[in-house]
Amino acid sequence: MSDERSLNPAELAAWRAVVESSQRLFIAIEDDLRTSSGLSLADYNVLVELSEAPGRRLRMGDLATRLIFAPSRLTYQVGTMEKRGLVSRQPCPDDRRGSEAVLTDAGLDTLRAAAPGHLRSVRRHFVDDLDAADLAALTKIFTRIDERLTAARAESR
Amino acid sequence: MSDERSLNPAELAAWRAVVESSQRLFIAIEDDLRTSSGLSLADYNVLVELSEAPGRRLRMGDLATRLIFAPSRLTYQVGTMEKRGLVSRQPCPDDRRGSEAVLTDAGLDTLRAAAPGHLRSVRRHFVDDLDAADLAALTKIFTRIDERLTAARAESR
Repeated sequence: MSDERSLNPAELAAWRAVVESSQRLFIAIEDDLRTSSGLSLADYNVLVELSEAPGRRLRMGDLATRLIFAPSRLTYQVGTMEKRGLVSRQPCPDDRRGSEAVLTDAGLDTLRAAAPGHLRSVRRHFVDDLDAADLAALTKIFTRIDERLTAARAESR
Repeated sequence: MSDERSLNPAELAAWRAVVESSQRLFIAIEDDLRTSSGLSLADYNVLVELSEAPGRRLRMGDLATRLIFAPSRLTYQVGTMEKRGLVSRQPCPDDRRGSEAVLTDAGLDTLRAAAPGHLRSVRRHFVDDLDAADLAALTKIFTRIDERLTAARAESR
């Protein structure tokens, strides 16, 4: 398809490199994580968010926003983790209609066991070949992309 | 969770920025694509691969490799596109056990109708705020990540 007039070759090359390699990267890192710990990347990210939250608990809506999950997908995700004993769901103390996801002790132990291997995997597939300038460029570029997306969402409301 | 010893703060910042922003980016661009054309990003990428292939056809295995899909997922993906008339499946001329995905005229028309809007969306969410140095850095970094992943896969076989 040569009808890609609105992007020049350098722009198209960057877009394709990011789309294709980032997908391959996430698949490789998730494969490592599943093999070593049985967790998906989504499981891992839920555990990290809860472990960093005050009282190791977050309202479901806040967790969905942080993880960029639709509410229905988060309900399913947290449900599968509840069955495995990694999290529990409790009513919000200050809002009877809301509920919170709470990290269990088993969930924290699972995260602590999985983290070193996962971070080695991130190092091996992603960080090891990047120098300080690459890391700074990625942080700057992707932080700016995120700011634009957040601004676009706010505008469209 | 502070047990992220194997990454320093600059490395962790880059990893988190890439993971979080790239997911938000792909979601935003897929939302635009679905709204304007009814296609998912996976649909769009299948159409692009087939439109660029000789005879507008690819063996299922080759298409799976290009799209980084597991064979079962590609079978499902191509099946849904076949129902919508965008592709057809035909036996390989030189291998009776194999099959090929073939772009239909309707599939090509759908791609041609979707492409300008999709590329405007990529421009708006991704390219517009990047300068030539950013584009070159992204292409270099993600091409190298891909080469490492390919080498690691070859090694593990």
